[in-house]
Amino acid sequence: MPAASAVLRRGSALRSLAPAVSRHLPRTAARLSSSYHAGEPGAPVLKTDFPGPKAKEELARLHNVFDTRSTNMLADYTKSTGNYIADPDGNLYLDVYAQIASIPVGYNNPTLRKAAESPEMVSALINRPALGNFPSHDWAEILETGILKVAPKGLNQVFTAMAGSDANETAYKAAFMWRRQKERGGPAVEFTEAELESSMNNQAPGASQLSILSFKTGFHGRLFGSLSTTRSKPIHKIDIPAFDWPQATFPLLKYPLEEHAEENAKAEADALAEVEDLIKNYHIPPCAVVVEPIQSEGGDNHASPEFFRGLRALTKKHGVLLIVDEVQTGVGATGKFWAHDHWNLQDPPDIVTFSKKAQTAGYYFGDPALRPNKPYRQFNTWMGDPARAILFRAIIQEIEQNNLVEKTAKVGDYLFGKLEALAAKYPGQFENLRGKGQGTFIAFDNPHRDQFLLKAKKFGINIGGSGASAVRLRPMLIFEERHADLLLEGLEKIVTSWEK
Amino acid sequence: MPAASAVLRRGSALRSLAPAVSRHLPRTAARLSSSYHAGEPGAPVLKTDFPGPKAKEELARLHNVFDTRSTNMLADYTKSTGNYIADPDGNLYLDVYAQIASIPVGYNNPTLRKAAESPEMVSALINRPALGNFPSHDWAEILETGILKVAPKGLNQVFTAMAGSDANETAYKAAFMWRRQKERGGPAVEFTEAELESSMNNQAPGASQLSILSFKTGFHGRLFGSLSTTRSKPIHKIDIPAFDWPQATFPLLKYPLEEHAEENAKAEADALAEVEDLIKNYHIPPCAVVVEPIQSEGGDNHASPEFFRGLRALTKKHGVLLIVDEVQTGVGATGKFWAHDHWNLQDPPDIVTFSKKAQTAGYYFGDPALRPNKPYRQFNTWMGDPARAILFRAIIQEIEQNNLVEKTAKVGDYLFGKLEALAAKYPGQFENLRGKGQGTFIAFDNPHRDQFLLKAKKFGINIGGSGASAVRLRPMLIFEERHADLLLEGLEKIVTSWEK
Repeated sequence: MPAASAVLRRGSALRSLAPAVSRHLPRTAARLSSSYHAGEPGAPVLKTDFPGPKAKEELARLHNVFDTRSTNMLADYTKSTGNYIADPDGNLYLDVYAQIASIPVGYNNPTLRKAAESPEMVSALINRPALGNFPSHDWAEILETGILKVAPKGLNQVFTAMAGSDANETAYKAAFMWRRQKERGGPAVEFTEAELESSMNNQAPGASQLSILSFKTGFHGRLFGSLSTTRSKPIHKIDIPAFDWPQATFPLLKYPLEEHAEENAKAEADALAEVEDLIKNYHIPPCAVVVEPIQSEGGDNHASPEFFRGLRALTKKHGVLLIVDEVQTGVGATGKFWAHDHWNLQDPPDIVTFSKKAQTAGYYFGDPALRPNKPYRQFNTWMGDPARAILFRAIIQEIEQNNLVEKTAKVGDYLFGKLEALAAKYPGQFENLRGKGQGTFIAFDNPHRDQFLLKAKKFGINIGGSGASAVRLRPMLIFEERHADLLLEGLEKIVTSWEK
Repeated sequence: MPAASAVLRRGSALRSLAPAVSRHLPRTAARLSSSYHAGEPGAPVLKTDFPGPKAKEELARLHNVFDTRSTNMLADYTKSTGNYIADPDGNLYLDVYAQIASIPVGYNNPTLRKAAESPEMVSALINRPALGNFPSHDWAEILETGILKVAPKGLNQVFTAMAGSDANETAYKAAFMWRRQKERGGPAVEFTEAELESSMNNQAPGASQLSILSFKTGFHGRLFGSLSTTRSKPIHKIDIPAFDWPQATFPLLKYPLEEHAEENAKAEADALAEVEDLIKNYHIPPCAVVVEPIQSEGGDNHASPEFFRGLRALTKKHGVLLIVDEVQTGVGATGKFWAHDHWNLQDPPDIVTFSKKAQTAGYYFGDPALRPNKPYRQFNTWMGDPARAILFRAIIQEIEQNNLVEKTAKVGDYLFGKLEALAAKYPGQFENLRGKGQGTFIAFDNPHRDQFLLKAKKFGINIGGSGASAVRLRPMLIFEERHADLLLEGLEKIVTSWEK
């Protein structure tokens, strides 16, 4: 291993994180490629045990007023930089969890800083509009040069939202209104008195008796509508009232894919048959199917492009919308800007939802019929946030100028190859390695998963899990081969530490 | 009327809005009290018809990518100032709608600008944390000096959210978990296998068969759970699946209150009896009652402090939570920081939700049992936004330093008195004037309401409606007597314009 990749222990000279410090690490400095890496140390910096004394103190204070039982670590964002997250004790961890996959181009990214300091951002922050009523004169410009510049192929409209949950829920609302409008005979047909009255009582026919079909182990958010489509874990759902909506089996592929081609194809065919059966026969008919390109929260479950093309064909055939939830998969991490770009669809999805790395949220669509037939049907006070839309525009700029999607595809291939080697070297420790050709969107199962995640901090790595046993890698788009090397070194240390 | 209050027509010398300009308006300049007013003109500035040519052009462009059918006006926020909203054509309207009651201390407020330009804000913007997993080391400090500094009496905890809808929905989730936990026998009792399994199928017992009781004509948001409690208008609800939850009649008071004391008391007693009946007998038992201190979206419907004290007593008696939705009423506009401060409750509400003027959102609570018994039950990726929490802190600072709540109480009294005079002068035009003693949170009904709102622009005023026939006044907290005079002048012009 190169010297620069050694974990720097307590007392290291690398106490300050100013960019200048990296000059003391010539082997690393030589490899620093872009300004978004300029502040990075050459390797994780560990000054205290985890959590350190300052973190403990602050955490106790926070717990008095804010539930901290799900806290992973207290962070000091002013000292976090590039791929590294800092804590209040001066430790710096290589961060391949990235705020649950939501940091796109590194901590304290200079391009984002510039956008955040711009007069445009300041105005957007302090003069927050009710976008549906009082959009700013440059809102079209902000959308066209930002959110819509990266609109998925075939989709040219956007409804802006706040986060993944309400992006999905407003997409569901659009689907319900679209379907009922079609059933009524088109946008010009007025609501009946019975519909108007019953809607106020939460009863049919006004409150439609339709459903959204989702997949087992899928995750789409935790508000009431989105949670009704979320099927990840009971702890997400228990005690919360839910709609009687159907769920189909997500194909459970076996790895390595090459060795299980026939079984996997059958699992996918069975899943599609189940979807079709539910569309045709579920007692509350689905008007849309919602699916993640890669089930993320639910354990990094993949399916083939053929499966998704089949799903598109099925939904078309039955007049049901296809909503692709790209909240976690979108914005580059899979080596394409949108994960569904991997599918080579003939017809685009009807709706694509986004959030997380976009730092804003919403849903894209193309069919004008997905604009409800009257104003104020799809509406709320803020309807998104121009400040965050301006930030997404800067993120897009940073991604495009630095070819970060292409780079992520390459570094993902590099990382996957090295992980295959590790998996061969340590049988049982990197089970069901998955995400080949999907950028850095990679995961594997480990029998001691929870311990694995905790232990990673000891070796300078911040890493997350998903599902029951998966370790999920969610590096940022500025993750390069040298970061991959550090990560691989850390992973090897973790899996060889069980016996010690 | 003083000269300064005359609407400045096209060709006026007041083309620029730089603070220096007000020196040319000596009568107004003398009355400028604080820096948040420094950029204000002495009166609305009208340079073009509404909408002007630039606005029309930009609106057409925007409509290609964003639904603009609910657009009231295109705004130029860079030129908006204090109580005035600018449009791209150089017009400046006195804004008593304030982004659907969500601008607290004026456009381009200097204190907010300072906060928005601070390094702390920039870091919060570009390093957005997943607050549940990776809160920043100073998150406790930000909460304690901001959101929690103004926590309602008796409540000392907060769950942060993004907007009013998810603030309410996460509050509902807390209520469901709290109730089921109590029914189970406390936080230490584990979920049963049947609960865990059925929750994944959206079925009882895991998905609880409980409800939230709300009031007719109430508004609590438009996502699936919140929309199930919203009972404002069919256009908000139609075609969207809803939970079978109960609604009680909100007392429909008659105005002036002094003249209808007996009837109104009976209406309130009847409403409380209906609530009690629904709590005891509704086939899906309510675990919480949600209520707005003043029903805002639904038409500015008031009830007396006695009614709310009765509601608190009833909910206590039956072990049902009281959730007070202060999304629109909170943060000062009623002449108290929280509208429920007017009630003199013996026991505080269990939960108070907030958003809008706070520019961030969430729910306050006090009872530790409202923290669910396990981590990750109340969780999502972002769980609010530190950038917006920092902004709320600056808003609180601005409010406190300038006594804006007390000032709003006074200017509200002044305005109400003048409106009573107008109502007497123009019978039928200011019907059911309401909001006496409630700061500037004032409304009245007008038989030509929609036309009223449109016509207001001609006289330099931006004003909103609510319910079927109400004109609602929602000035900012920096609205002073001279602004009230301008508003009153405009209102008089509107109601005397019908005949012309």
